[in-house]
Amino acid sequence: MKKLINDPADVLAESLFGLAVAHPELRVDHAHRIVYRADPKPHGTVGILSGGGSGHEPLHAGYVGLGMLDAAVCGEIFTSPTPDQILEATKTIDTGAGVLHLVKNYTGDVMNFEMATELASGIAIETVVIADDVAVEDSTYTAGRRGTGVTVLVEKIVGAAAEQGRDLAEVAALARRVAGAGRSMGMALTSATLPSSGKPNFELGESDMEVGVGIHGEPGRRRVPLATAREVAAMLVEPILVDYSFNGEPAVVMLNGMGATPLIELYLMFGEVSALLEKAGIRVARSLVGNYVTSLDMAGCSVTVLRVDNELLGLWDAPVSTPALRWGL
Amino acid sequence: MKKLINDPADVLAESLFGLAVAHPELRVDHAHRIVYRADPKPHGTVGILSGGGSGHEPLHAGYVGLGMLDAAVCGEIFTSPTPDQILEATKTIDTGAGVLHLVKNYTGDVMNFEMATELASGIAIETVVIADDVAVEDSTYTAGRRGTGVTVLVEKIVGAAAEQGRDLAEVAALARRVAGAGRSMGMALTSATLPSSGKPNFELGESDMEVGVGIHGEPGRRRVPLATAREVAAMLVEPILVDYSFNGEPAVVMLNGMGATPLIELYLMFGEVSALLEKAGIRVARSLVGNYVTSLDMAGCSVTVLRVDNELLGLWDAPVSTPALRWGL
Repeated sequence: MKKLINDPADVLAESLFGLAVAHPELRVDHAHRIVYRADPKPHGTVGILSGGGSGHEPLHAGYVGLGMLDAAVCGEIFTSPTPDQILEATKTIDTGAGVLHLVKNYTGDVMNFEMATELASGIAIETVVIADDVAVEDSTYTAGRRGTGVTVLVEKIVGAAAEQGRDLAEVAALARRVAGAGRSMGMALTSATLPSSGKPNFELGESDMEVGVGIHGEPGRRRVPLATAREVAAMLVEPILVDYSFNGEPAVVMLNGMGATPLIELYLMFGEVSALLEKAGIRVARSLVGNYVTSLDMAGCSVTVLRVDNELLGLWDAPVSTPALRWGL
Repeated sequence: MKKLINDPADVLAESLFGLAVAHPELRVDHAHRIVYRADPKPHGTVGILSGGGSGHEPLHAGYVGLGMLDAAVCGEIFTSPTPDQILEATKTIDTGAGVLHLVKNYTGDVMNFEMATELASGIAIETVVIADDVAVEDSTYTAGRRGTGVTVLVEKIVGAAAEQGRDLAEVAALARRVAGAGRSMGMALTSATLPSSGKPNFELGESDMEVGVGIHGEPGRRRVPLATAREVAAMLVEPILVDYSFNGEPAVVMLNGMGATPLIELYLMFGEVSALLEKAGIRVARSLVGNYVTSLDMAGCSVTVLRVDNELLGLWDAPVSTPALRWGL
């Protein structure tokens, strides 16, 4: 297995050690694998918590900081965080105004965030489940659609709203609105390899790609022969446009790499995607091109389109200072 | 070949098209493959130009913007830009105070930047060649050491100085000082695959890695069996410390991914590297962990250590707003 690791069992713990050294503006609770801000938000502001299995970096720990998450709780690779980790993170960031849980729709994540909420007596908690992947209706680890790229955009927009001092009900309603207005679809050229097994977690022939793949390598819609970037862009954008009416409104568009795709290819793909969106009457108001929700060393990409209005654009543009997303400061 | 491209001949041109859509704050001269700022620096400030072969993204186009480069000139993949491209870029950014050429030490790059300088009558040009890779003294495309990670740090620091209005001689002297105070060394777990050939550009066995590899896959110091992250960190840090006296001064440290290494591994590697530096009495004052100087889809990493004083740290911390490096704004 070609990986820069020591013992496969220590990958997450040792990566968090490095993260703590690289980002003195963050704190790491190594016992509970929680990453949180060194300078917490003021008393009486809503805490924003997300988390899930590791292996999708920079999601979620890379989005902790001013204007975005207050904490991220890290499960083992491709494994949900436990209820006690989530409970501890919730307690860590509650300043008295309650905590919003942003949860990607995977059965284990949803269940464990729910159990943590039951255990967190005395803390007001709202939960918003994100299920934006249009590829399949149910999947390997999921009842209903999988949560993926829109999570980053929800975390950014809701983080800005919480920073303004909006209350828990308002912030949760905003999160639901954003989660409902975004759609994603991904594809894989290669499988990821898990450190624990040392083998590709699914098989994909030399001349094949998986369209609609999940971020844990879950099967997509179909396995097809390799195609051009232009054809791949159409395979990703069309199902998104069929699924949701963007209605000629502007959009925030993310062209996301799965971890092993060169940036020169991601920009090329973004060119193809933006041309298709323009043809459909959708203006790309803001964009992200890069590795934002990865699947270890999977080669491939995903497209996320979020319909926005002036309020959402204003919150998108608000200052953010995290390891992976930073502007306005 | 598993790549998100259309025609291999169009990769750079189409990628620049996507870059232009994603970054309206930049302009692209598609005829000359130059990326430059939409809002140029004021008249009378020194222009900073870098460039080289493509395939190392975000280097260099991802570093164009306030506080860093005024323009980047893009050669074909792993191919030097031509003298006429470099000349055109130089003319584009000269505001009357001259232009600094920052050149990574590869024979073709050095020669073509030199020819452009000869052609650029009437523009004051200073050239600083960066040769920070301690792995080998001469290499496939290089007389003398190869230029690599320190380039990013020079571009950042010198960009900040030019923004302050320092003159060409001062900015060039600063670039030479920074280039002289930094060292890098890299390694590869896998080879990159060039779109033009569709094949790995060097052979590396299933159980081997290349220590001291160049960013075009040039041979390093030795091919050795796969080792732990801790052992790899020592193989990269020790030659750097042998080569240059960091003298207990603080350092800016970059743990750079070659393009296909997951971020969770890069943070883990950074933890190992920072522990070794600390043991050697070097304080990590600032750091970058991520993909900054890549080699297409190569898996592996490099370490860059730059000795800094208060002046350099101040310039490092100065505002920067580019696609790949952004803070303070």
